Parts: sequence; C-alpha cells; structure tokens
Amino acid sequence: MSKYKNAICQPKGFKSAALACGIKKNKGLDLALIYSEVPAAACGMFTRNRFAASPVKICREHLKTRQAQAIVVNSGNANCYTGKRGLGVARETAHLAAKLLGLKAHSVLVASTGIIGRQLDFTKIRKALPMLVNSLDKSSGLNAARAIMTTDTRPKELAAKINISGKSVTIGAIAKGSGMIAPDMACAERSRSATMLCFITTDVLIAYSGLKAALKEAVNASFNMLSIDGCMSTNDSVIILANGLAGNRPVSLNARNFMKFKTALKKICLGLAMMIVSDAEGASKFITIKVTGARTNQEAKKAGLAVANSNLVKAAVYGENRNLGRIIAAIGTSGARAKEDIAIECSSLKKKDVTVKVDLKIGSGEATVYTSDLTPEYIKINAEYN
Amino acid sequence: MSKYKNAICQPKGFKSAALACGIKKNKGLDLALIYSEVPAAACGMFTRNRFAASPVKICREHLKTRQAQAIVVNSGNANCYTGKRGLGVARETAHLAAKLLGLKAHSVLVASTGIIGRQLDFTKIRKALPMLVNSLDKSSGLNAARAIMTTDTRPKELAAKINISGKSVTIGAIAKGSGMIAPDMACAERSRSATMLCFITTDVLIAYSGLKAALKEAVNASFNMLSIDGCMSTNDSVIILANGLAGNRPVSLNARNFMKFKTALKKICLGLAMMIVSDAEGASKFITIKVTGARTNQEAKKAGLAVANSNLVKAAVYGENRNLGRIIAAIGTSGARAKEDIAIECSSLKKKDVTVKVDLKIGSGEATVYTSDLTPEYIKINAEYN
Repeated sequence: MSKYKNAICQPKGFKSAALACGIKKNKGLDLALIYSEVPAAACGMFTRNRFAASPVKICREHLKTRQAQAIVVNSGNANCYTGKRGLGVARETAHLAAKLLGLKAHSVLVASTGIIGRQLDFTKIRKALPMLVNSLDKSSGLNAARAIMTTDTRPKELAAKINISGKSVTIGAIAKGSGMIAPDMACAERSRSATMLCFITTDVLIAYSGLKAALKEAVNASFNMLSIDGCMSTNDSVIILANGLAGNRPVSLNARNFMKFKTALKKICLGLAMMIVSDAEGASKFITIKVTGARTNQEAKKAGLAVANSNLVKAAVYGENRNLGRIIAAIGTSGARAKEDIAIECSSLKKKDVTVKVDLKIGSGEATVYTSDLTPEYIKINAEYN
Repeated sequence: MSKYKNAICQPKGFKSAALACGIKKNKGLDLALIYSEVPAAACGMFTRNRFAASPVKICREHLKTRQAQAIVVNSGNANCYTGKRGLGVARETAHLAAKLLGLKAHSVLVASTGIIGRQLDFTKIRKALPMLVNSLDKSSGLNAARAIMTTDTRPKELAAKINISGKSVTIGAIAKGSGMIAPDMACAERSRSATMLCFITTDVLIAYSGLKAALKEAVNASFNMLSIDGCMSTNDSVIILANGLAGNRPVSLNARNFMKFKTALKKICLGLAMMIVSDAEGASKFITIKVTGARTNQEAKKAGLAVANSNLVKAAVYGENRNLGRIIAAIGTSGARAKEDIAIECSSLKKKDVTVKVDLKIGSGEATVYTSDLTPEYIKINAEYN
C-alpha cells in the first residue's frame, strides 16, 4: 500500500473540489465536494449517538437507494442539535448540489463536523456551491482532505491499488478526526453519531452486499477500535462510493476477489485510524492496547477500550509513569471476565509508541485498541475550542 | 447538622487512633484504627470493580457476621493485585489487631488506599499495631481522617446529632477521595472495588436490616452519584458501625425514627461526597448536574454520569467555555432515552459552582450528579503519582 497524494481522486471517474465559504472563522478551507462521474454503489456507517446530526439523518435517508454520486462536506459547524431548521439546511445542501450536478437529490450525501448546537448558515453554502461544482477536478484530493479538518493539525489521505481479475482497482480515502473520538459506527439502517469522518472512493465493480460487508468489517477493525477521549460524537460518518469503472469481474461475497478487496479496504481504514490517533488533540504518545485471553473478541474490545478511556492510565503514560495498577482498575470495571492473575506487559514509556499487552487468561478472544495519552495540551485545546 | 471536629469519636463508645508507620514515603500519617468499646451492628458497601482489593475481600468475609468492633485502615498502598500474599497481609492485619484488642478476628475490618499492584509491607503494620491500639482515645478523630488521605489536600469529617425516642443519637464519619473516583458500590453480598473510603460510627440502636437499608439509600444518593474521573477504584468502601450505646428505642424499618436516622445519615454522606468533589484532584470548579424528565431515575443517573464523565464537557467548564453541544453529545451516548429537543440550562461558568440542568422531556425520572472540571493540574498530579 502506498500513501498516495490526492488519494480520493486516484480511482477512475472521481473528482473533488474544496474552497473556503466562510463557515470557519479563520477563513480556512471548509467546504468539500467528492464526485463520481457515474452512479456508484454507496454505503455508509454512522455514529450510534442518539442525537445524530442533521447530515447523518439525510445520509440515512438517501442511502436507502444504495447508490450515490456525490458527497458535500463542511467543517466548522456540525449542524447538530439544530432542529428542523438544521435538517432543512442539510437537505437543501443536497438538493442544490444535486441540481447543479444534474443528479437526483438522493444521489447526494452530506456530512458536517465542527461546533454542535449552532445553526449552519445556508446562505454561505448556497453562494459557494456553484463555484465548488465548477471547480471539480482530478487534482483537489489533498485540498478536500484539508477542507474537512477541524482541530486536526494535518490532512489525512491514503490510497491503494490492487489487481482484481486482471484489472487495476484503486481505493482512495480521506479522513479527519482529532478529538471527540470514540467511534462506534453502525450501518445506515441502525442509528446514532462522534466526529471522525472518512470518505472512501473506489472504482471497483462490486455488488452492494459485498460493499457493505467489506465496509463493516473494515470499520469494525479500525475506526471502531480507537478512542481518543471516550467522547462519541454526533457526526461520525464513514461513506464509501464504488463506481465500477475499473471494469473488473464483479466482486461478490465469498469469492477470493472479495477477500482481496476487503483486505485492502481494511488496511486503508486502519492506516487512517492510526493517522487520527497520531494526530490526537495534544497527544504526545501513541498507545496500542493488545488484549488476549478474553472470553470473546467483544469482551477483549471492552477491556481494551476501558484501558484506552481511563484518564488515569492516559495521564500516567503522559508522565512516563509506570502504573500498572490503573490498568488493572480499568479492566476490572470493563465488564470483561478475567482471571485474578491477569498478565500485563508494558513497553518502555520513554518512547513515543507505547504497547500495552493484557492477557485475561480466560479464553481466546482478542482485540487491539488504539489511543493516545491525556495531556495538559488536550485540555488547553478543549478549554478554548468553540 | 454541624460539622463537628473529631467526628468519628463523637458517638458514645467510639475511640480512634492514628500514626505514621512508614507506608507513605513522606512519613505522613498512614495507619488509622477506629474502635467501638462494645460490639456494633456492621454493614459495608464496596466497589463493583472485578479486581476488588484484598481488604475488600476480607471485609466481605467478616461482615457475614453482621457485626464488628474495629476497622484498621492504611493509606499509601491499596493492597490490590497483590495475589495470595496481599490477601494474607489483609487477613493478618485483622487477626493481629483482633488479638491486641481482645476480639475475634471477624470483628475487625480492614481497608486500604493508595498504589495498586505493589505488596503491602506487613512488617510495618505488625510493628505499629500495638502502639496504635495503645493510643486509642476519644480525641484522635481528625488524625484518623488525616491518616486515610492520599492525594486529598484536606481531611474530611462530619457529624450530626439527632433525637430518637428522647435520646441523643450521634453519627460521625470520615472520608477520603480525590481521584480515581467513580464509586458504584453495592452491599457486601455483591461484589467488586474505587478509591473513596468512608467510615461511619454511630451510637444508634438499630437492627441490621434497618442499618443496611439506611446505608444503601444514603450511599446511592451520595457517593454513588459522584464521578471525578470516571475511574472506578478497586478499593471503594463505606463501612458503618452502630453500637447502640445511645440507648434509644430500637430503630426499625418503616418506623418514623427510621426515617429520621436515614435522613441524617444521607445528609452526612452527601456532605462528605461534596467535600470529595470540592477536593477533587486539580479541580477548579464544582459541577452539579441535575437531570429531570428521564424515563426512570436510573436513566436520569446514566445521563448525568455521561455528562460528568465527558472530558470535553469538563475541559470546556474549566475553560469557562460555553459549549452545550458537548453536553448533547454526551447524553446521546448515555443510553438514556430523550426527546430530540431536550432542554439544557447552564449557570454562569465564571463562578466556582456550576449547575447544569438537563430536561430529557420524556418522563419523570430524575437524578443529581456531582463532578469537577478537568484541568491541567489533574493531569500533572496523575502523571506523577506513583
């Protein structure tokens, strides 16, 4: 897997655009458009937060058709807890973009990230959309990655090429996320929302069922395994568009080419998940928690997330202060079953990458969870962000 | 209710003692003894952490007799994750204290707080116990409160006098707790452990069933409603001893005098819980979260604790940064049912005391939860504590 620049524009038939429309006070890029020249199979996974943001609701509605061709994303405002008016803004954004692109409204998806509880000014979006559509090209992938950033310090993009039935298939993706990160996303049919966003483009030819299965597995093994601050956002979204222009033999579930696609997709998602943890608000350490010996994989994940979400563990790692007792205390409240003599191993805390290995000694369930340390800088960022 | 000094020695027949036996590196007071001259009805509530500390296990065992006469408490070491050896130390401590006091071993309870995962040196306790027993008196209540402190910056004690059937009944209590505070304690029959400790002495004459019911209600309405950092310790313990020396008509469940006793006990526990929040590690704000309109009281508590445990909410309050969106996001992940247009009111963030009112608009369940803000100082303390 290579780390392509301009990732989301690498797959055949995809273009993007980005501009500053004034939602962000600092005049930074805050509006992005991702577009496929032909209809694409589309699937999304969204936060389970009960108060899902307006764009998440619109996506759930539009994704019922299982296809889409464009995604409009804004940063600077989450369009959440904004009532009917906010829902109207999300809907109008999709409608206007569809009109300008010559598409049906349900072919356009929307996503937002930023402050919660403040109305998103549609006039800014309305003014900017024509220019955004007009500036679609094959070289704005990196700018699109920049336009979805909030407290992120760097854009996150990744792409991979694989060979399927003799054809070159490309997957490209961008993501954002730095704080309010504890994703637990489910497929569109289910409900709730956090703020990590990921948009994946691919030219693979694949049936919806295969796309959905691959996305679910990739997200569960990557974004759903990380927690920066245990705070699940109202806006977490991962959306994939597969437009079929690679011309490969159709990928179907249970075929060898499915495994190949799924593995590549998982690598992309895990790569981006790791970039998110590396760029966590104020973080000085990258912490990997490997749990083995659990009764089930689910219990291993529970134990791992309990450690990842313990402020005391995270503050100790920040202080390079070996305090295994806090790991014990965290696991003891996780609900995961464990022997009393569980084994804990911890790599040197002096290094930037810290690995904690926990063996619960009760079964064969395992999970790997990613997090960062808790630092005064995290508090500073979040004491001021508004 | 007055805030008596020397609180635990106020009830008739209770004495205490405290000294420095060398467990704490800084030579501070680290060993306390609370003693009743006559057998007392005894009841305890302990952490639900799966890895309960050794002293918690010993208490569960000894409390089966429903009576006790002494409690030995050390600070500086939690005697948790210390295996059979640690359990032996806790047992030996009770045995030796019992021998010195002329009691059966099961009449002595033990409690520990401090670092987890390090062996507690019994030789220090063995050397100190005779002197501790010899120095029992009616004036060491405050020193006992000091001897159970870890990162607490001040001792916490409280007492109250009530009149029951013409007799003056006294309740006294000491507590400690500053970090790793998210108690969820259950009665001794059930299992698990955090580090807040509270020891209550009273000369009321009461049957065990009444004592247990009153303690359960008082703890559920106070200590179990606070969370400083969402980290449940392995050692949380609340123990009450009622020696009956007030000579009141026996208090029984469902009688008016039961209500009176219960109300006084609840006030004491709530008062101490508030002292714990006021003394939270690095805290600059006292946050009260009042949730109404929930489907049940339990769901109201869930919503309140989700807000109390949100690092983003706590960092925002620290920064005096009005960010209601983070409260929304926290409630949305709590599992509590709510209307989409929930109402949130927040008092001025400029003041030290901040009150957040949340109306979930769905039922009549309510709960009040207490927490503190998250500050760089909290991280500093926990980056260094070991």
